[in-house]
Amino acid sequence: MPTARTRVVRESERGVYDRETVNQILDEAFLCHVGFSVDGQPFVIPTSYGRDGDNLYIHGSAASRMLRQLKDGIQVCVTVTLLDGLVLARSIFNHSMNYRSVVILGKAALVDNPAEKLTALRVLSEHIIPQRWEDVRQPNERELKATSVLRLPIEEFSAKVRIGPPIDDAEDYSFPTWAGVVPLEMKVGEPISDPKLEPGRAVPEYVHSYTRTA
Amino acid sequence: MPTARTRVVRESERGVYDRETVNQILDEAFLCHVGFSVDGQPFVIPTSYGRDGDNLYIHGSAASRMLRQLKDGIQVCVTVTLLDGLVLARSIFNHSMNYRSVVILGKAALVDNPAEKLTALRVLSEHIIPQRWEDVRQPNERELKATSVLRLPIEEFSAKVRIGPPIDDAEDYSFPTWAGVVPLEMKVGEPISDPKLEPGRAVPEYVHSYTRTA
Repeated sequence: MPTARTRVVRESERGVYDRETVNQILDEAFLCHVGFSVDGQPFVIPTSYGRDGDNLYIHGSAASRMLRQLKDGIQVCVTVTLLDGLVLARSIFNHSMNYRSVVILGKAALVDNPAEKLTALRVLSEHIIPQRWEDVRQPNERELKATSVLRLPIEEFSAKVRIGPPIDDAEDYSFPTWAGVVPLEMKVGEPISDPKLEPGRAVPEYVHSYTRTA
Repeated sequence: MPTARTRVVRESERGVYDRETVNQILDEAFLCHVGFSVDGQPFVIPTSYGRDGDNLYIHGSAASRMLRQLKDGIQVCVTVTLLDGLVLARSIFNHSMNYRSVVILGKAALVDNPAEKLTALRVLSEHIIPQRWEDVRQPNERELKATSVLRLPIEEFSAKVRIGPPIDDAEDYSFPTWAGVVPLEMKVGEPISDPKLEPGRAVPEYVHSYTRTA
């Protein structure tokens, strides 16, 4: 159930609180925006994440500013947004977007146990591009130390979803303009080999068939 | 110049502070993540924005929680992220993403002058889909009142940009795996007409040729 802090306030009919929908959104995306405060100033940093059951592991590239003030964890808001389309109505007022978003509130803690950190990095890697982990050089001790990962329990959350065509006021349906949806999606392009790649090394199937949608 | 708060701390070679690059990123995207704090809890809300010179206009769909505590403006962080690709290196540690992001800090104020609000809504509309504004029913007085727009001056900001192939440690270049970049981009799909559209109304050229890249 939503808390007072996660209950969707505006366009509340778009609020979704079931865990399955939330997990689907979290699993389709891999980029989140992490919000936290330092001396009263909010910061919002984009970074990657992976989901392991009821935990979100957040890559520490976002963590430098956070970590300086981190001891027992830091209060964060992690937001994941999938943009699905522009909704073009007959009135400007009823223009909208189709999207699916998740907001998670909670205390993110630094993962300091080396075994959990290794697991977390594997979860992150598999979340972003499955099968890559086994195909590359694994982290050594120095690299593990140099990487920071945050763990955020998925406990206090909500999602917001809008799908479908525009909804206009009754008297606007005769307005002489086109109305509908312009779909937007993340397109995966043709892989570009590293110029330093040894000749004859083929693009692996898991890269070639890479997609984010189920 | 960056302030102590906007100077890029991690991977500082990726920091970009020139206004032209920042404007290019802001103009290619139209979705931002707005961060603000309520009672010490950070919130991060996705919403649309438009740029008018040195001001960002942020759509009030994000504002409900904010506006309740808003009087003379609210301290925010607005972050805009364009994801350009997965960077697959030979070691997990050197995996990365190609991206362009902008972070703007400042005080967002509610636009309450009706003339500025109308201008702001037009800026937002033209930013998201040029030529739509003139093709639909304009806002009436009731709708203008029901819409909230925030103005954020683009004064304290930084950008972060990563482009190009993976960069591996020298000793990893012989590791037997594929390395390179998987490009990602926002794809615009075929417009879907509203089922309630009157028959024979064609998709306008500005919808048909819609794209986000320059």
